[in-house]
Amino acid sequence: MAFDLSAHLRSGLPAPAPAPFKGFPPFYFVGGNNAPESLPVPDLIAAATRALEKEGSNLAIYNLMTGPQGYRPLREWIAGRLKRWTQIECTADDMIVTTGSLQALDLVHQVLLEPGDVVAIEGGTYGGTMTRLKGVQAEYVGVAMDDDGIVPEDLEKVLATIKAQGKRCKYVYTIPTVQNPTGTVMSLERRHAILDIARRHDLMIFEDDCYADLTWSGTRPPAIRSLDTEGRVIYCGTFSKSIAPALRVGYLVADWSFIAQALPLKTDAGSGALEQVTLAEFCAAQFEDHVAKLVGLLKTKCDVIQEALHENFGTAAEFRAPDGGIFIWVTLPEQVDSSQLAVAAAKEGIAINPGREWVADPETGKHSFRLCFGQPSVETIREGVAKLADVCRREFGVPVRSGNVQRS
Amino acid sequence: MAFDLSAHLRSGLPAPAPAPFKGFPPFYFVGGNNAPESLPVPDLIAAATRALEKEGSNLAIYNLMTGPQGYRPLREWIAGRLKRWTQIECTADDMIVTTGSLQALDLVHQVLLEPGDVVAIEGGTYGGTMTRLKGVQAEYVGVAMDDDGIVPEDLEKVLATIKAQGKRCKYVYTIPTVQNPTGTVMSLERRHAILDIARRHDLMIFEDDCYADLTWSGTRPPAIRSLDTEGRVIYCGTFSKSIAPALRVGYLVADWSFIAQALPLKTDAGSGALEQVTLAEFCAAQFEDHVAKLVGLLKTKCDVIQEALHENFGTAAEFRAPDGGIFIWVTLPEQVDSSQLAVAAAKEGIAINPGREWVADPETGKHSFRLCFGQPSVETIREGVAKLADVCRREFGVPVRSGNVQRS
Repeated sequence: MAFDLSAHLRSGLPAPAPAPFKGFPPFYFVGGNNAPESLPVPDLIAAATRALEKEGSNLAIYNLMTGPQGYRPLREWIAGRLKRWTQIECTADDMIVTTGSLQALDLVHQVLLEPGDVVAIEGGTYGGTMTRLKGVQAEYVGVAMDDDGIVPEDLEKVLATIKAQGKRCKYVYTIPTVQNPTGTVMSLERRHAILDIARRHDLMIFEDDCYADLTWSGTRPPAIRSLDTEGRVIYCGTFSKSIAPALRVGYLVADWSFIAQALPLKTDAGSGALEQVTLAEFCAAQFEDHVAKLVGLLKTKCDVIQEALHENFGTAAEFRAPDGGIFIWVTLPEQVDSSQLAVAAAKEGIAINPGREWVADPETGKHSFRLCFGQPSVETIREGVAKLADVCRREFGVPVRSGNVQRS
Repeated sequence: MAFDLSAHLRSGLPAPAPAPFKGFPPFYFVGGNNAPESLPVPDLIAAATRALEKEGSNLAIYNLMTGPQGYRPLREWIAGRLKRWTQIECTADDMIVTTGSLQALDLVHQVLLEPGDVVAIEGGTYGGTMTRLKGVQAEYVGVAMDDDGIVPEDLEKVLATIKAQGKRCKYVYTIPTVQNPTGTVMSLERRHAILDIARRHDLMIFEDDCYADLTWSGTRPPAIRSLDTEGRVIYCGTFSKSIAPALRVGYLVADWSFIAQALPLKTDAGSGALEQVTLAEFCAAQFEDHVAKLVGLLKTKCDVIQEALHENFGTAAEFRAPDGGIFIWVTLPEQVDSSQLAVAAAKEGIAINPGREWVADPETGKHSFRLCFGQPSVETIREGVAKLADVCRREFGVPVRSGNVQRS
């Protein structure tokens, strides 16, 4: 019998990949990539060398003999850093080192969510979270935000609506510190207010602090988890943004009662050990200095992309200066459909995230898009934004003016 | 409202982890660990250094800019090695580098299995595969094996029974080369016979070649996939056994049509890049020499454990000399329940895999157990097997004689 794979596939699979990867387009403003020029290569070599001298033989043992929660010296370093930077008090036992923070998302979803459960999310949020929530058949509802973060009154309203529908809201998912995609930092007052609402409604909070190392100010409010005395808040972080995304190392922090439920679901026989031991060595010696330099570099790119937007889109582009991070959220006039813009831009070698994929209610994102500026050089940023404005003008007639020149 | 996590959990979760990891017992004969003394630490340091010099900056980019199938130079090396060692002809595009071979198992399960589908497996097989099959609500049926591997006549019988039950067998899962737990190598004739049955019944075959680098003879029959001209056979391998399990790097090899279906399900944003680049450098320079040394070392441990079994269990322990690998399958007389033995042994600091967890039909494994010999030193092997015999004698009255001394 001739072999036909399609007769053997599970039903309901996602569309197959169209072809092997062919490389990035020249103007790549998507993906949470970092600045290649920021990578501290000699320091990483030194760290990998020390790490292998110490632990090389133990690579023979799953989890380096320090258990499924991850390499213990790295967990201890993370606990210390969290105390200094986020005011979270935890030990190496209140933590799982994960294969990127995406695995932390998966574990939280698997521990908490039944099909039909609802998660309250920020009105604009990380697209990958929404994709994953759909994957576990959970629902999500967006909550309004302003420059201080989630609007408590709107969260109350959303929770009342969910309740009225006979559904259960399991938790609030928030990226409070350098929000994705808005780049805002939630105020301390709001953190208290959101936690208070969670207490009154007996909700949990999932605090995704993945970009939190990258604030321009070099300071930040305490993590919501640090304000929590009950174990109601689950927290995740990552080294993807502070060091390198291709190192797949994140961490999930919660009370042991939660960690104990999540551990049996981490069925990967451990996260990559060479990356963990190298990070443990690197971080102990150089993390703070490295992040300070990286933040300076990203701030420059953030300034450049804002200048380029001003210059090329003029008043047509609305955006708020991010408080940190690697992306900016831009809104164009309502004649611009950002999904169509993304398609037209892709033909010119420009990749952007259309707003619909980054908001809870697609209608609210249809004139917006997200630009990631961590990876491209300042020259590429300038050139790419100028080209994007050209595409936008050609397709939608805006921006009318740019670079102080009337274009149409 | 006081916070009670149990009110928030998904239903049907596995039992929580009882406590943070407390270290291994002194006689640890479980887990697919490798020999710590085999790790080529200076060569790995040199490889990591070269790798970071070449690719360090690209760690800023997810997947090192070589796409979601994994680091391309590593894929190219794997393709070359597969051709030399397994006679599989493939390119870097017919492959996904996975986060350990466990991710390859998960991807295959997700692409192929509906709840209620049946997988034909070897009568004794890797416990983790059975756990994962249960996890996706698939069923499995064991097929008889002899020293040449799966018995074709029994596979035909099993397939007829599955069909008669109105169920669908999706594929045959086999570990043909250094079978887990028996340590046998399937003969070439059997490989042809199994593939022929798969063709006639329009089944797929999932060939798990995780231990295949570790044959004592330094040779092996061609992979079943190399005999397949239709794309009916999916193949996986790993660096866990040939180099180090704490490096989470495996690979899935299949026709592009299958890879294209699996790729969208690999939602981890890439496998660890530092491990991939370091392996690419190491393997190109030293893989064959390293494996030759490792195999010599493991063969010695395998000889030692067989001697220790002879010496301490006498004729009570039945086992076949493995053809390679890191484990041995031992069967004791029928008064010995190996699950009870495992519990009693654990109290004495000895960990073994009770047979029930390593066979398709638990009844067939109740007098057997698996001992992993890769990690413990030869001294620990000798001492641990002697202690295990003591525990067994105390609990079950066998072995009666050991070390040529009548004990009871």
